[in-house]
Amino acid sequence: MQAVQYRTLGCAPEVAAVPTPEPGPGQVLLKVTAAGACHSDIGLMSLPAERFRFPLPMTLGHEAAGTVAALGDGVAGLAEGDAVVVYAPWGCGGCRQCASGQENYCPHSARLGISPPGVGAPGAMAEYLLVDDSRHLVPLGELDPVATVSFTDAALTPYHAIKRSLPKLVPGSTAVVIGAGGLGHVAVQLLRALTAAQVVALDVTEEKLALAREVGAHEAVLSDGNAARRIRELTGGLGAEAVFDFVGASPTAAIAAQSVAIAGDIAMVGIAGGVLPVGIGAVPYGVSAVAPYWGTLPELHEVMELARAGAVHIHTETYGIDEAPLAYARLHAGKVNGRAVVLPHD
Amino acid sequence: MQAVQYRTLGCAPEVAAVPTPEPGPGQVLLKVTAAGACHSDIGLMSLPAERFRFPLPMTLGHEAAGTVAALGDGVAGLAEGDAVVVYAPWGCGGCRQCASGQENYCPHSARLGISPPGVGAPGAMAEYLLVDDSRHLVPLGELDPVATVSFTDAALTPYHAIKRSLPKLVPGSTAVVIGAGGLGHVAVQLLRALTAAQVVALDVTEEKLALAREVGAHEAVLSDGNAARRIRELTGGLGAEAVFDFVGASPTAAIAAQSVAIAGDIAMVGIAGGVLPVGIGAVPYGVSAVAPYWGTLPELHEVMELARAGAVHIHTETYGIDEAPLAYARLHAGKVNGRAVVLPHD
Amino acid sequence: MQAVQYRTLGCAPEVAAVPTPEPGPGQVLLKVTAAGACHSDIGLMSLPAERFRFPLPMTLGHEAAGTVAALGDGVAGLAEGDAVVVYAPWGCGGCRQCASGQENYCPHSARLGISPPGVGAPGAMAEYLLVDDSRHLVPLGELDPVATVSFTDAALTPYHAIKRSLPKLVPGSTAVVIGAGGLGHVAVQLLRALTAAQVVALDVTEEKLALAREVGAHEAVLSDGNAARRIRELTGGLGAEAVFDFVGASPTAAIAAQSVAIAGDIAMVGIAGGVLPVGIGAVPYGVSAVAPYWGTLPELHEVMELARAGAVHIHTETYGIDEAPLAYARLHAGKVNGRAVVLPHD
Amino acid sequence: MQAVQYRTLGCAPEVAAVPTPEPGPGQVLLKVTAAGACHSDIGLMSLPAERFRFPLPMTLGHEAAGTVAALGDGVAGLAEGDAVVVYAPWGCGGCRQCASGQENYCPHSARLGISPPGVGAPGAMAEYLLVDDSRHLVPLGELDPVATVSFTDAALTPYHAIKRSLPKLVPGSTAVVIGAGGLGHVAVQLLRALTAAQVVALDVTEEKLALAREVGAHEAVLSDGNAARRIRELTGGLGAEAVFDFVGASPTAAIAAQSVAIAGDIAMVGIAGGVLPVGIGAVPYGVSAVAPYWGTLPELHEVMELARAGAVHIHTETYGIDEAPLAYARLHAGKVNGRAVVLPHD
Repeated sequence: MQAVQYRTLGCAPEVAAVPTPEPGPGQVLLKVTAAGACHSDIGLMSLPAERFRFPLPMTLGHEAAGTVAALGDGVAGLAEGDAVVVYAPWGCGGCRQCASGQENYCPHSARLGISPPGVGAPGAMAEYLLVDDSRHLVPLGELDPVATVSFTDAALTPYHAIKRSLPKLVPGSTAVVIGAGGLGHVAVQLLRALTAAQVVALDVTEEKLALAREVGAHEAVLSDGNAARRIRELTGGLGAEAVFDFVGASPTAAIAAQSVAIAGDIAMVGIAGGVLPVGIGAVPYGVSAVAPYWGTLPELHEVMELARAGAVHIHTETYGIDEAPLAYARLHAGKVNGRAVVLPHD
Repeated sequence: MQAVQYRTLGCAPEVAAVPTPEPGPGQVLLKVTAAGACHSDIGLMSLPAERFRFPLPMTLGHEAAGTVAALGDGVAGLAEGDAVVVYAPWGCGGCRQCASGQENYCPHSARLGISPPGVGAPGAMAEYLLVDDSRHLVPLGELDPVATVSFTDAALTPYHAIKRSLPKLVPGSTAVVIGAGGLGHVAVQLLRALTAAQVVALDVTEEKLALAREVGAHEAVLSDGNAARRIRELTGGLGAEAVFDFVGASPTAAIAAQSVAIAGDIAMVGIAGGVLPVGIGAVPYGVSAVAPYWGTLPELHEVMELARAGAVHIHTETYGIDEAPLAYARLHAGKVNGRAVVLPHD
Repeated sequence: MQAVQYRTLGCAPEVAAVPTPEPGPGQVLLKVTAAGACHSDIGLMSLPAERFRFPLPMTLGHEAAGTVAALGDGVAGLAEGDAVVVYAPWGCGGCRQCASGQENYCPHSARLGISPPGVGAPGAMAEYLLVDDSRHLVPLGELDPVATVSFTDAALTPYHAIKRSLPKLVPGSTAVVIGAGGLGHVAVQLLRALTAAQVVALDVTEEKLALAREVGAHEAVLSDGNAARRIRELTGGLGAEAVFDFVGASPTAAIAAQSVAIAGDIAMVGIAGGVLPVGIGAVPYGVSAVAPYWGTLPELHEVMELARAGAVHIHTETYGIDEAPLAYARLHAGKVNGRAVVLPHD
Repeated sequence: MQAVQYRTLGCAPEVAAVPTPEPGPGQVLLKVTAAGACHSDIGLMSLPAERFRFPLPMTLGHEAAGTVAALGDGVAGLAEGDAVVVYAPWGCGGCRQCASGQENYCPHSARLGISPPGVGAPGAMAEYLLVDDSRHLVPLGELDPVATVSFTDAALTPYHAIKRSLPKLVPGSTAVVIGAGGLGHVAVQLLRALTAAQVVALDVTEEKLALAREVGAHEAVLSDGNAARRIRELTGGLGAEAVFDFVGASPTAAIAAQSVAIAGDIAMVGIAGGVLPVGIGAVPYGVSAVAPYWGTLPELHEVMELARAGAVHIHTETYGIDEAPLAYARLHAGKVNGRAVVLPHD
């Protein structure tokens, strides 16, 4: 089959012919109907040799939708042809954390060499995808796989970050979304669907600010040296009860620290390498900061229900599998509007 | 193999020879090291024909410990000989509720005909037990299977009920345990281990009250017409922040309603058929009442850690498999001190 | 001053001249700008002598907005002319419950003879209202007192009930509102503003069902013998994660029990005298039922922010103080569209 | 009256004669029965001129117990002679945060110039203390003021930090207490009273480690370069679910980051100026870090109940008011065993 692979360190991904996998006992083979390209793939391919810890070549793609093509021995509750999406932050499945569906925080996966598809294990950007266990599949039903494949990351990740802060996002509160791109523009929609909070979006271009307004931000503010002051103005001087930083660089972390309210929340979601210093004097009293990772399995069920209800929309551009390297190139260049989705069988 | 079965409606259980099961794909065969007998088994065998909805004969036993005897195809993460206990309130495994480990509240299991072992599916009171999926096994490690097998129900069930009320059981609060028997005397220990609340136990015999004091109850009160008044005295007139009714009869439900504080919790755990009426005037303002069922999978992990830490002890009497009918007879007669555990291979 | 009083047991309220109160130390005198009439006033005036426990005559009105007319000694943080609404479920102010703003659940108020204005203490349906402590005032700001006075009960009460169930009202869940009247039609709006749940409203008239749809209910269902079955259909057979019964009669309690999902929530808010029996077999496993009372002080702050954001609207009819008896008569006859608000100074 | 004051920047505190205050409307005058000296007082007196923002002289003491000596106009619910302790992190009393008892996080107090007694407002280390509002008093009852005065900070502060982490401190989890001094040795006791977690204490002297073991730590570990590795060993390699840093220096923050589990909690309680960097790669996935401040008013009620139940003990040394400067000198020199308490009337 054809697969989009990262083959040579520091080089662009390539389309290659690889053997079609067969499901072993307990595994499920999916015919991929849609695979999303993600900024974090670019981040992974930008790592220097000493920090890239997976063997090459590696098939990309951690956002996956497909139909069941074949079931390994011992798989119950699924039938060939079933449409599904994949929960990709795989854990060991046996510990207390996994038992509660928080496989994204499984403490054993690293030691056991368990990696998400597309981030160590062979990914979804291929004609077929091998899924290690049926528990990682969530029914898609009648939903369009192209429109919803990115919910598995681009909606699940902000949803997980937002869900932690819901108790603070009461009526009268303010939520700040830093970065109105792939994840951030979904975060704005999630906040509008799940809370009565004022939503303020920050970005560096007028185009992104317009997008933020279009998807529901009450206010869209240029992310510059005045941003924190502007947020204070929009909150009667008190700051925001929750700040979600989808950039995660030093300047955005600084804005987060300056614009959060006493006893507010900060989530450092972006992976641009910035850190937020927590301590007396560094942030207002009682501020709680977290560096969340992806989302939980029950949360993926919830996010798919938001897709089903039409409450959240992700704009997509589609590409054939041969065009996947082009999709990554455009993504790298900041030219993708929303998410780039690869259709391996078109 | 030998199995303890409920074979004829309304009759005592019998030991019978049945085929040793073999694990199909995804299943696990356990050599049973200990199987607990439970009051709810007696309740099940007391049901009239029109309310007993399982086919006979039915192998009993929903509290199970064992070692892995054989693995079906597709089972990973386990090896022959591994010592485990069984999470028995099996769900479908695929829904949002199951994804979060709350299989005890799976909304699909009834429709799919999924039953716990010993309560529909063949149970643990046999030489070997077939477990439908490895996700239902929790490692036992070095723990003694006889001493800990009953944690899977007699500790898990009160733990689940108590966990819901922990936010109300702050220092200065009071928890009432009605019924200091199998589950109740564990509840007392759990409350002492997990909270700083005053623990008041109620029962109808001095022997049970003595047991309650011995395992940590601050106060032990005769469960009669004066009980609610006595609880009011012990709480400065305010009532108890949480009442756990492990009897669940009409008189105990009435005591719960009369002794709970404003905005307190009541859990109707016992299955004696009583109900608690909720409404303005029927209970104090803000009281929340629940009829919980068993516990969740992550909670079983937590309960096993309490066993590991030595924080909770369950007294056990042991029986060979041929003596199992005797164990049930003694249990029915109220002669078992703690829990009766059957050792099928002794 | 003029006051609307309940003067003779079993008779209609009357307008009477009473002395204008003066604020003692710590108290605040409000010039009433708006006072809401509530169904529960009718309920109070319908009580037989043996259950009516307040002295007569009693000035009615527990929904109050006003401007500060005079400050007693020792009152800080307020100035004459400040526009406020009143938090009416007054507690002792000194206990742990009151310290957290849950004065509605103060365990000491009954013993201390502390009653809400209009329900024991002299109420708001008069030219002036004496408020016992400045902590019971919430700033109104620029909000219209007529449009928002009813938020202090008709929005606060459903908000309090809903807030408890927010963790269960995840995307994909269903909330049922029984009774689309004064509180129920606000509950529908609150659920839409605060959750992504499907909202199903029940009532007995097409007019109320039309109102429910108009204010945002996804489905409006006739509240009859088929209602529970219809809710099952709308939820894929699973039932609703939360049911709010704003009627609280036996038939509506039965619908609640039949339409709630496993592990769901029921809130018995209405005061029609029905009770919901909780116990194994009486409700699905894990269902939690509560009889809530009014709301907390921080919740009133939150509800006023919803008014400020324009997220919730309450339709009002206005009456002069002389017309207040007429307002109650129309309310009793079910002829009031929304809430009846009395303007004592018009 | 006599008062212990910080009079000259950079100099030791002195005993001075000052006018005895009189309670204005709404205020309460306490005859001080015990006043605690705290390390943070030393920190305050060590600030350079440009960062010390209160007028001098300033009476010290933010841990206060007393009896009501006189009531200002408008104060209800108290009588002369009532024994109380003081909730010192005073807020505005009118906002949503204060309405829920979280005055320690009041967003308005700084702007309004509201300061805790002893940290801006005249403090407790005097014969009499003026309390701004009766809502800041919690009944002491029969408790010994000397033994319990320090609960208002030395127990309340760790209690507040621990309470946030209780949902993660399930059986089988581990809590790490860095710094077994005034607050830390109370934290160990609180964790034992409120959880079934393994408690590991860290400190730099064998004496403090012995104290930690004595008050209930399961393990006491030297706080050096091996500490994080040792914690990993004690947790099966997984790290601690919660780390409480009562030192708050750079090296202890580093230990916290290295010893916390995936999705664990870190609380930076100490004020030694260190910060904890939060971001991808800086801490394990999902770690939540907070810089908490003191505690809430309902939490002070709860902490006093722990004192009442005898669940927590704080060792105290007592001093007359003339010896207060000596108490501070000994505190500064690290010679105080537990807390230093001043008795102004002895």
